[in-house]
Amino acid sequence: MKTIQAVSYPVHFQEESYVLLSNLIKNNNYSTIFILVDENTMEHCYPKFIPNLKTDKRIELIEIESGEINKNLETCIGVWNAITELGGDRKSLLITLGGGVITDLGGFVASCFKRGIDFVNIPTTLLSMVDASVGGKTGVDLGVLKNQIGLFANPQMVIVDDRYLTTVTPREIKSGTAEIIKYGLTYDIHLFNQIKDNKDLKIKDLIFRSVEIKNEVVLQDPKEQNLRKILNFGHTLGHAIESFYLESEDKENLTHGEAIAIGMVCESYLSSQLLGLSTEKVNTVKEVVLSIYNKNNLLKQDFSSIVNLLKHDKKNVNGQVNFVLLNDFEDFKIDCKVPEDLIIESMEFYNR
Amino acid sequence: MKTIQAVSYPVHFQEESYVLLSNLIKNNNYSTIFILVDENTMEHCYPKFIPNLKTDKRIELIEIESGEINKNLETCIGVWNAITELGGDRKSLLITLGGGVITDLGGFVASCFKRGIDFVNIPTTLLSMVDASVGGKTGVDLGVLKNQIGLFANPQMVIVDDRYLTTVTPREIKSGTAEIIKYGLTYDIHLFNQIKDNKDLKIKDLIFRSVEIKNEVVLQDPKEQNLRKILNFGHTLGHAIESFYLESEDKENLTHGEAIAIGMVCESYLSSQLLGLSTEKVNTVKEVVLSIYNKNNLLKQDFSSIVNLLKHDKKNVNGQVNFVLLNDFEDFKIDCKVPEDLIIESMEFYNR
Repeated sequence: MKTIQAVSYPVHFQEESYVLLSNLIKNNNYSTIFILVDENTMEHCYPKFIPNLKTDKRIELIEIESGEINKNLETCIGVWNAITELGGDRKSLLITLGGGVITDLGGFVASCFKRGIDFVNIPTTLLSMVDASVGGKTGVDLGVLKNQIGLFANPQMVIVDDRYLTTVTPREIKSGTAEIIKYGLTYDIHLFNQIKDNKDLKIKDLIFRSVEIKNEVVLQDPKEQNLRKILNFGHTLGHAIESFYLESEDKENLTHGEAIAIGMVCESYLSSQLLGLSTEKVNTVKEVVLSIYNKNNLLKQDFSSIVNLLKHDKKNVNGQVNFVLLNDFEDFKIDCKVPEDLIIESMEFYNR
Repeated sequence: MKTIQAVSYPVHFQEESYVLLSNLIKNNNYSTIFILVDENTMEHCYPKFIPNLKTDKRIELIEIESGEINKNLETCIGVWNAITELGGDRKSLLITLGGGVITDLGGFVASCFKRGIDFVNIPTTLLSMVDASVGGKTGVDLGVLKNQIGLFANPQMVIVDDRYLTTVTPREIKSGTAEIIKYGLTYDIHLFNQIKDNKDLKIKDLIFRSVEIKNEVVLQDPKEQNLRKILNFGHTLGHAIESFYLESEDKENLTHGEAIAIGMVCESYLSSQLLGLSTEKVNTVKEVVLSIYNKNNLLKQDFSSIVNLLKHDKKNVNGQVNFVLLNDFEDFKIDCKVPEDLIIESMEFYNR
């Protein structure tokens, strides 16, 4: 029975969420309700969702192909054409029903269609629940560069319904866990310890606490000037590793969480070398990560390609890579410059 | 020596504009200055512009192909890739130097790159000076549908320098004149009469007054709830006609102004049929338009295609086309529904 109030919209967790959504539709008198799904959420989530939606408005389904590889502008053009052909106008509502690809891409599509229509996010994976529910980041990839194109835009409402989690794979649950670990390490070590000790783990509570943390961070620093940068912990190297696997045709892709987990181990190592994080704590991070994720040794010959991808990180200025590192758990430092040989050392540390 | 203060940025008209731009760059400590041009503004405007820019920052030129046909997402992707390859980061500045295609597309590109970088618009055609200097509309076409994808975003500064007008064709000057006529008919009949009587026509003053009017309108109604809709006068049918010519391979394209001029004649006719605009005034509008633009008879067999394109107008709600019509000069009514046979009659009126 809980709601978190984000900057301009509510994140609903309770049973009555769908009643509130139906009311939103009624009160705003939308002309058409578009629902964006992929083939997986179409099969597994849509049948759970649609009986809850009480409205006499026209409903139109738009399905895109699942996968990060499709989180691009070509897919956006397809969705924009579909909305146009289905007679979408400025009073249309777009409901996104899916993981991060659907919610990020859908938010971007809605925000740019006829200079912006309303949208509602219903994340169906653990990752999108804990990561995309607040913050207003929408966007798509440009080539292998993650979220290179996008904008800040807020939905009218978010519904976090953990019953959708029964529709996803254990690997996807693990992918979302990486973000929860991040919230723990940077902001609430109690949360991290819960995962480390592997007890009292009610997923519902972990999700709620994660959204609560992210919301506190975003409200204090919406434009990512300072505090919000902690949300990038593990993501600087993590994104580069994720992009590298995405563009390597002979390698199986990593999930976002798998890449970010490696990134957190490496960046904890950097934190210990450059700042005050103790070696013991670095080892704890590595142990917890390896207790959840398979070891994915990074090949020596790939190091330079990964380092090269760092130069496209969105936090960079004047060609300088800016890391967010930890003085200690729950204590961060932004805009850290790291010598290239130390970055490589951090990947070797992960491999050891 | 004048500046108009738009909602969050200045529009400079004076000699010192370029000094102020150089100061802006210095004060914001941008990492790189990207300049977006097309082959025409590269040849004719860039040589006039660049000696004025006093900065020690890295400058990178990006050239796209001119023409409305290139105002699309494919071109955006090209520019985003170019900025990426040239090492653009969040502290980059994009200066747009060109007509409406360059300023609209450039503003959109900047606003979505890494979730938004700063941009400065330097319109070089009469149309973009009087239409794109204020209002914050950025965007591109989707197929033949004008400005279907875009968003509201404000530049850091606009420089209106009428010396660039020596670089454009008389046809382009005429294209911009249609917007000035629109400001006159809907907001300041004195401005319209100046054009009608064809005297005291200092282009500099017409531009300044037009930007001043648009700014007053936009400040009062930034989100286009009411007053701002007058800026769409002539544009509902005008855009449909423009799109129709754009997609007809056997017809030469109309300029935006040529299409809007026809739209204003037709919509004045609709105003006389549905509201109080006198027949005498409708005839005056038609006479002034035909004194400037060649007659472009609309073919009977094309009427239904044009009417069909109206259904994509951004003002539509629930499949209803919403016209902005005139009770009288300087007196408008929004959200007017018009029967289809009357729309066709209005095109016949133009043809007569």
